[in-house]
Amino acid sequence: MLTNLNDIEILRNTLTFWNQISDEEQKMFIDNAIIVKYQKDNIVYNSSGDCKGLTIVKSGNLRAYMLSESGKEITLYRLFENDACIMTANCLLKNITFDMIIEAEKDCEIILVPFSVYGMLNTSNLFIQDFTSQLVSSRFSDVMWVMEQVVFMSFDKRLAIFLLEQSAIEGSDILNITHENIAKNLGSAREVVSRMLKYFQSSDIVYVSRRNIEIKNRKKLMELAS
Amino acid sequence: MLTNLNDIEILRNTLTFWNQISDEEQKMFIDNAIIVKYQKDNIVYNSSGDCKGLTIVKSGNLRAYMLSESGKEITLYRLFENDACIMTANCLLKNITFDMIIEAEKDCEIILVPFSVYGMLNTSNLFIQDFTSQLVSSRFSDVMWVMEQVVFMSFDKRLAIFLLEQSAIEGSDILNITHENIAKNLGSAREVVSRMLKYFQSSDIVYVSRRNIEIKNRKKLMELAS
Repeated sequence: MLTNLNDIEILRNTLTFWNQISDEEQKMFIDNAIIVKYQKDNIVYNSSGDCKGLTIVKSGNLRAYMLSESGKEITLYRLFENDACIMTANCLLKNITFDMIIEAEKDCEIILVPFSVYGMLNTSNLFIQDFTSQLVSSRFSDVMWVMEQVVFMSFDKRLAIFLLEQSAIEGSDILNITHENIAKNLGSAREVVSRMLKYFQSSDIVYVSRRNIEIKNRKKLMELAS
Repeated sequence: MLTNLNDIEILRNTLTFWNQISDEEQKMFIDNAIIVKYQKDNIVYNSSGDCKGLTIVKSGNLRAYMLSESGKEITLYRLFENDACIMTANCLLKNITFDMIIEAEKDCEIILVPFSVYGMLNTSNLFIQDFTSQLVSSRFSDVMWVMEQVVFMSFDKRLAIFLLEQSAIEGSDILNITHENIAKNLGSAREVVSRMLKYFQSSDIVYVSRRNIEIKNRKKLMELAS
């Protein structure tokens, strides 16, 4: 049960159908939602796990990615504060047949509306079902954007976009991320990332040290990304 | 209005909610659906076009693909007889923000349930709305499968899978398709396709002539694909 007014406010703002459902339905959300904490790198969801319910990011952020048998990864999307995640209610989505993993990229607090409640309301209320459907469409669009990057964009452009995004997430020009980690995000190999970073460095766009990557010329990086 | 019993049967079988909607609603589908014909290569849908409604493939098949600014393509999925397509009712899907094109890959006949009818029924009936949502999930899964191939699979495997699929679609071991066309389907370059086909030929898997590609050793091709 949510008692903190701030948490209820997040529910209200994120669930865009809030004003279209009954007082009883609103009460069911508030009475049954719980706060769950995850530490950095904890797995919030994987396809073989339980159908948890609807999750809303209260603090921190989540990363959804696909993992190959050989351990290669690609980031599909990220979820930030107040974003809702429907994949954790995957039993509602009969035709979602692919595997993916969602992990906490930082320490996170999540508002969870358990499946027992969300599933029931979803099958009885058109506004809630529409919300579910729009969430699936949003994630579909996110993945199509990644697809567009992977298929159509040159790797220098993809890396530039990634570094700028990462800088926005970390709120800094100094990025604490390994080449290995960047490769996993972009579905590429470490060697490819290192080679391209070396090229960026030779153009004075970044400075690569053993510990981190520093953005030296943001303007040039944005030109590459656009 | 559909008068042909066979067409009504397609409607019944494809619209999995058929037995859960009222007689009046069933009648609305039958009275308002129309048959539309497309010739090979006609564009059935693009993101900037009208919101047509729900389409069901009666005969022929459709190909959905993404197109880059520079004219590069990648096939996202194909729809065959009795498959329903919700992207042609894109105005229902508020958060679908990506561009794609759906074209007739052969001469096609389509059953179209106009948006004026489908949209209305979708927002008033939970079963129909659920069907819409499941269709989006299906296409999302299709696209994720392509993503998995593009990011994680080697190109020889992807080409082998494509040739086997194409052979199933054409119902023949002799494929009338250009290297350019294969490249467009796979989001690759013609040179890359030609080089890999040459390698397949050197292993006696295919025979490449000016006019077509013949599958000579299906077993080896399936080993490559698996």
